[in-house]
Amino acid sequence: MASEIAIDHREKAHALLKADAEKIMKLIKVQMDNLTMPQCPLYEEVLDTQMFGLSREIDFAVRLGLIEESEGKLLLGSLEQELSALHEAFTRK
Amino acid sequence: MASEIAIDHREKAHALLKADAEKIMKLIKVQMDNLTMPQCPLYEEVLDTQMFGLSREIDFAVRLGLIEESEGKLLLGSLEQELSALHEAFTRK
Repeated sequence: MASEIAIDHREKAHALLKADAEKIMKLIKVQMDNLTMPQCPLYEEVLDTQMFGLSREIDFAVRLGLIEESEGKLLLGSLEQELSALHEAFTRK
Repeated sequence: MASEIAIDHREKAHALLKADAEKIMKLIKVQMDNLTMPQCPLYEEVLDTQMFGLSREIDFAVRLGLIEESEGKLLLGSLEQELSALHEAFTRK
């Protein structure tokens, strides 16, 4: 029972962070899809804010010992790659 | 052993959030102390960013079931009070 709770925190932390990362990924994809539309605003600030929020969640989870630092870096890293691809595509436009 | 881990997450979450809140409180106090100095910048953006970061950590801890929603609101609420007192003092200056 108690050990279930401990495992639950780890599993839940992973699930929550993954869900939050996916939300940001969706925002990035929407931006990507809108690149070809006229007058599409690039919500850079929104995305930056969301990324900062996620990085704080990840940092908190790492400090709690719920996820590994390397996992956190992987999660943020893949989003950062998508973001920079978006910025590049936007600059080329 | 396993139950110690579960308790540890809760205790650690509280300790981390309290420490992060205290860091912001110190930033606010430094700002307050500098109000009487000439050319003191009000680091509104820095404080806002830190507050947002903490609110994301608290929200994450609540979603994980590590702290109660009411506790999280109390923690943020007391900081928000200090912040608005700071803003008021700055406006009066």
